[in-house]
Amino acid sequence: MTTDQRHLHLNAFLMAPGHHDAAWRHPASQPHRVTDITYFQQLAQTAERGKFDSIFFADGLALWGGRTGGNVSGGLEPLTVLPAIAVATTHIGLIATASTTFNEPFHLARRFSSLDHVSGGRAGWNIVTSGTVNEANNFNLDEHIDHAVRYQRAAEFLDVATRLWDSWADDAVVLDKEAGVYADPERLREIEHAGSFFKVRGPLNVQRSPQGWPLLVQAGSSEDGKEFAARYAEAVFTAQQTLAEAQRFAKDVKARAAAYGREGLPVILPGICPIIGATEAEARALEDELTELQVIDYGLGQLSNMLNLDLAGYGLDERLPEDVLPSEDQVNGNKSRFTLVAELVRGEQLTIRQIIARLGGGRGHRVVTGTPEQIADALESWFHAGAADGFNIMPPILPTGLTDFVDHVVPELQRRGLFRTEYTGTTLRDHYGLSRPADHFSERVLASA
Amino acid sequence: MTTDQRHLHLNAFLMAPGHHDAAWRHPASQPHRVTDITYFQQLAQTAERGKFDSIFFADGLALWGGRTGGNVSGGLEPLTVLPAIAVATTHIGLIATASTTFNEPFHLARRFSSLDHVSGGRAGWNIVTSGTVNEANNFNLDEHIDHAVRYQRAAEFLDVATRLWDSWADDAVVLDKEAGVYADPERLREIEHAGSFFKVRGPLNVQRSPQGWPLLVQAGSSEDGKEFAARYAEAVFTAQQTLAEAQRFAKDVKARAAAYGREGLPVILPGICPIIGATEAEARALEDELTELQVIDYGLGQLSNMLNLDLAGYGLDERLPEDVLPSEDQVNGNKSRFTLVAELVRGEQLTIRQIIARLGGGRGHRVVTGTPEQIADALESWFHAGAADGFNIMPPILPTGLTDFVDHVVPELQRRGLFRTEYTGTTLRDHYGLSRPADHFSERVLASA
Repeated sequence: MTTDQRHLHLNAFLMAPGHHDAAWRHPASQPHRVTDITYFQQLAQTAERGKFDSIFFADGLALWGGRTGGNVSGGLEPLTVLPAIAVATTHIGLIATASTTFNEPFHLARRFSSLDHVSGGRAGWNIVTSGTVNEANNFNLDEHIDHAVRYQRAAEFLDVATRLWDSWADDAVVLDKEAGVYADPERLREIEHAGSFFKVRGPLNVQRSPQGWPLLVQAGSSEDGKEFAARYAEAVFTAQQTLAEAQRFAKDVKARAAAYGREGLPVILPGICPIIGATEAEARALEDELTELQVIDYGLGQLSNMLNLDLAGYGLDERLPEDVLPSEDQVNGNKSRFTLVAELVRGEQLTIRQIIARLGGGRGHRVVTGTPEQIADALESWFHAGAADGFNIMPPILPTGLTDFVDHVVPELQRRGLFRTEYTGTTLRDHYGLSRPADHFSERVLASA
Repeated sequence: MTTDQRHLHLNAFLMAPGHHDAAWRHPASQPHRVTDITYFQQLAQTAERGKFDSIFFADGLALWGGRTGGNVSGGLEPLTVLPAIAVATTHIGLIATASTTFNEPFHLARRFSSLDHVSGGRAGWNIVTSGTVNEANNFNLDEHIDHAVRYQRAAEFLDVATRLWDSWADDAVVLDKEAGVYADPERLREIEHAGSFFKVRGPLNVQRSPQGWPLLVQAGSSEDGKEFAARYAEAVFTAQQTLAEAQRFAKDVKARAAAYGREGLPVILPGICPIIGATEAEARALEDELTELQVIDYGLGQLSNMLNLDLAGYGLDERLPEDVLPSEDQVNGNKSRFTLVAELVRGEQLTIRQIIARLGGGRGHRVVTGTPEQIADALESWFHAGAADGFNIMPPILPTGLTDFVDHVVPELQRRGLFRTEYTGTTLRDHYGLSRPADHFSERVLASA
């Protein structure tokens, strides 16, 4: 083992009170703190102690799970939480989901640029197109926008946002008190965008930020999603159940990115829900304890949503007939998650109750149950086999699942030379080994001349 | 003087690097820190040391002043700054401007509710309808939306936002781990709003916040603006040059509010730019020093915007002919500011250069130059004459203008029994003596049954 070997990357996916859908009922979780900012600051500080590349908050624009009451629902808006975490940490990257379907590019470009300033270059944006009709219903629509149209809008949204981030040259601020010149008007520009979805004049009203652009992350694995990732994403979150599928996915996305001249990109980060015990038996016992605590009605509602199918009429201890499942074409929400769950239904002959138990830990993401060494083995094997550049760590219970990972799995990865022992850079892009986008100011000025 | 006498309220309007348009050129200002979060945290801490009710950030959705370069332009988005200030302070209220014209109610209701949670009940929203075509040009429009339509939209926006804040009953979160019930589905509700501008189903995806609603602030003084304030505002920022006008304004708005059954509301806070010196001569010298530092081209551009008139063809040392001014009816931007400046042009026989000097300190707000005692006199006289319930303090230079106010004017106000010496409550509503809105859950449920 050489000292200059490649390191894997770790992102802490913070979903309060933990990723297991029964986490909130477990004695170790803290569901009373899901609107308490100190809870999130402390989680981020734990992840930073573990030298994680970043933390990440998912997001949706409707009440997750509806008014069923069987799980924690509601919580703080991610871009309100992250500035408060930024000032309580020094190195860790800060990634938030935001939707291109129900936002305007000027607003989001501005918010992520501001967060990048506030954090000294640690902002990341997980770009989503919003998968549910419940979200459309909060934004003036009766029906959801078609999947393909959402991705067309997302592409134009990114074009506008990146040009807004480049609308101030890096050296636009002159700050010459004597001459009375704050900024050089020639080093700022309107973008004059006029497209199918947006008309935006610019420039942005924020000076160019430390990273230039926030880190661009994406998580869709449908055809549209992979194509979008290939063009824009610098890191990808993905749900993969088997090594072979994960390898195929990584190879596919990297080949598509290479076709756009983006060699080596994006950083592939499969999700993993690590259920950790001092012994394997202890870990299994924790997993069983969580399964016991599941609220079946809640799980049934979630499964119905993922399969785009009302399951109320089916027996919990019966297998679901394969022929009632729609095809991916018929799904206008999260297509890739549908397909992954549909494969579970088709492939493993599970009853509905067993599927709910299987999905409880990671909602379709891979669950690994075992000792710190076994978890490290699972990460190492995927990393060395080209299935992952790192992992999106989804602790089943917070804060304990993250603390256990930081205290026991991270040191094991470090012992194996697989993970950093200190931060070597200061920005989120530094941590992931990604370059800072140039402002392209000279070229674009010349091109328009 | 009795000990239970009424106190005045103080809001610190933080505009980096200070409100005077030449502040950034003055040696005491720190324009290199306008994207540095510690700068704003320290300003807020200074205001909190002075027991201010609140701090406030204005906002616009386009580059203020365009690409002229003659003043600081660009900066951090207010709702990104405030969470970082919330966790660095304990009592002071946190008010941000946000536009009802270029936002969706679900987004803003959620962000202000989240900020209210993060700050423990200290969030306030200054509701604006956005006055410039430059902003419209960043949101898919060639022309600006008509003033009256903007206010119609604002009214419906408030209806939706307040109902979203009431979509969780105060006691909706049950958190019964044993029974597996996080929230009582009967204590959450869809709002099913369908109006002229918005269709929003709800509920909000944030638990009801400490204040229920953020403090609602408004600053328009046109007819539409005053009517809106009467119906919705709990506090009003206003620009008033003379005692008589300020008295008339306060009486007018309070009478309109009373007609809506809102007796005693809103809290009236005229803006004041205090130029403070140990002696009056020292204060005058500072004012002159700032006038000397003005970038005339920048001031001319600002004046042209406020008057809705291109001034390039007029001599700087000549008076502007009155008959070239448009009427307020013809202005589709900030109507009340236009009228205030037009009165300066008509009434005082000033040259263009003199008007630029006069507007440099407060952009139409009242400038008071003198010793701490003289500043306190000015505040006290308006307060006792019914022209103000408090003041929107606009330091000409930051941080020194705020520090001087806190160290010298606040103690003088306290000696006179006009201002608190300690916070007596914990929320922004507590500081302004305003009640917490009930969730109206029982009534509305009954009404819809």
